[in-house]
Amino acid sequence: MLYKQVAIIGIGQIGASFALAGKAAGLLGHVVGVARSPETLATAVDIGAADATTPDATEAVRGADLVYLAVPVGAMRPVMAQIAPHVAAECLVTDAGSTKSRICEWARHMLGDEVAFIGGHPMAGSEKHGPASASADLFAGSTYLLCPGQAGEAHLTRLKQLVCGIGGRPLVVEPQRHDQILALSSHLAHISSSALCLAISAADPEEVVRFAAGGLRDTTRIAASNVEMWRDILAENAEHILPAARQLQDATGDFITAIENENWDRVARLLAAAKDFRDRMYPDTETN
Amino acid sequence: MLYKQVAIIGIGQIGASFALAGKAAGLLGHVVGVARSPETLATAVDIGAADATTPDATEAVRGADLVYLAVPVGAMRPVMAQIAPHVAAECLVTDAGSTKSRICEWARHMLGDEVAFIGGHPMAGSEKHGPASASADLFAGSTYLLCPGQAGEAHLTRLKQLVCGIGGRPLVVEPQRHDQILALSSHLAHISSSALCLAISAADPEEVVRFAAGGLRDTTRIAASNVEMWRDILAENAEHILPAARQLQDATGDFITAIENENWDRVARLLAAAKDFRDRMYPDTETN
Repeated sequence: MLYKQVAIIGIGQIGASFALAGKAAGLLGHVVGVARSPETLATAVDIGAADATTPDATEAVRGADLVYLAVPVGAMRPVMAQIAPHVAAECLVTDAGSTKSRICEWARHMLGDEVAFIGGHPMAGSEKHGPASASADLFAGSTYLLCPGQAGEAHLTRLKQLVCGIGGRPLVVEPQRHDQILALSSHLAHISSSALCLAISAADPEEVVRFAAGGLRDTTRIAASNVEMWRDILAENAEHILPAARQLQDATGDFITAIENENWDRVARLLAAAKDFRDRMYPDTETN
Repeated sequence: MLYKQVAIIGIGQIGASFALAGKAAGLLGHVVGVARSPETLATAVDIGAADATTPDATEAVRGADLVYLAVPVGAMRPVMAQIAPHVAAECLVTDAGSTKSRICEWARHMLGDEVAFIGGHPMAGSEKHGPASASADLFAGSTYLLCPGQAGEAHLTRLKQLVCGIGGRPLVVEPQRHDQILALSSHLAHISSSALCLAISAADPEEVVRFAAGGLRDTTRIAASNVEMWRDILAENAEHILPAARQLQDATGDFITAIENENWDRVARLLAAAKDFRDRMYPDTETN
């Protein structure tokens, strides 16, 4: 047992999966689940993710040796402000937000020097929501990014053990670097996928699909993700997303110019450069 | 048996799969495969897709009652010019090209009124190439678009029977309408996927993937497709692809402007409109 008393604030898909996986591995003891909706809390208990529940984060963190923040990125700051006066000195606070710079900064300011904070980002989860979609093996084989900041080595070692115990692969990264890479590896794809949907949205969706192969389904899949979650991520990581989005717009413009000029050699070079990078990203996939 | 003597010009993945499927269903008789590469021809015979082979399309079409053109879109016109004087009057010529307006126009001009032509577009195939990647069930369950033009009802009925016999679902469409919809349902996604790869291609591909979940893999998958094939498609359907690509650029620009203005309500509305269209395209997918 690594943590005896755990508060999961925002016990949705990620929070409930974390509790299920940690309990299944015998690494988490008593779990208190926090959410606003009584239905969410009832489901968290039903599936065995929470031993007790409360809508009050203040109450949940009292006596906890691990606090897991799994609320949307946009709600992290008020939740930290709320729990800060009530977190025990020896407690570790961590989160599951998809951006890290601002969350780690808020934690430093709001939780202060006495409470240890390690930013976390499990690279797992589906487009589904809520504890009903939780699973004890959600993190299995997935990278679990950690930003330890000023938390001591003992805290980091213990959290890494927990991440490994639930099947994740811990990887330590600086918050700024995290947000910079994630803008390219994750956030930009959401803009790309959503922009593609918007570009064809004047058409009849059923007719489009009747004339589509698998490519359209794959390319637009993540446009079906949760709107509020992605609004928050684009807001919190705007600094790195904006230059990437301008590169995306420029690359689309390069195709347009080449097609307008009937410069098919140039079109072929653009397609070849894109294919080359894709093949280097995923060299092992048989049909790519 | 629907066609006794068949010439497959360009016996790659699609052409060889067509032959395998038609032979397996007992609907195609003697198949002559045409390709430039001796290795391709040898493979076509090895897998049972061709009974005889020749590098000479003129020779292959003599005495054929079905000619199947499965060469790249950019090679259709010269091939039609080459075979036109040698095709029998009762023969049906069809193709497997991904664009239809210009191919159907070329056929009208080059094959003349005496040879029946029905444009075809099987919505099947993977990113792999060549007869080695062919399969008798490649068309199973896939839409098979047909542009009959001035071909008589008897020819259309027989070709539809063949398409159904190999597991495809025939759907008749006007060539212009075909290219207009395909620009939105297929061609634009290739520009979107390739532009995304180009936008992130200054980064280290291995590092990007280490920090990526499944979204990036899906969104970039079709950027790994064959370069020459897609150059030809973008060239032949430039008329419909250009306005669609400008809409894609505008939609990306809408995201950029909203993020620059920190207008998060606007960002949420864009994401919600994209999600709404995606959900209407694929309402049945559990995790979208």
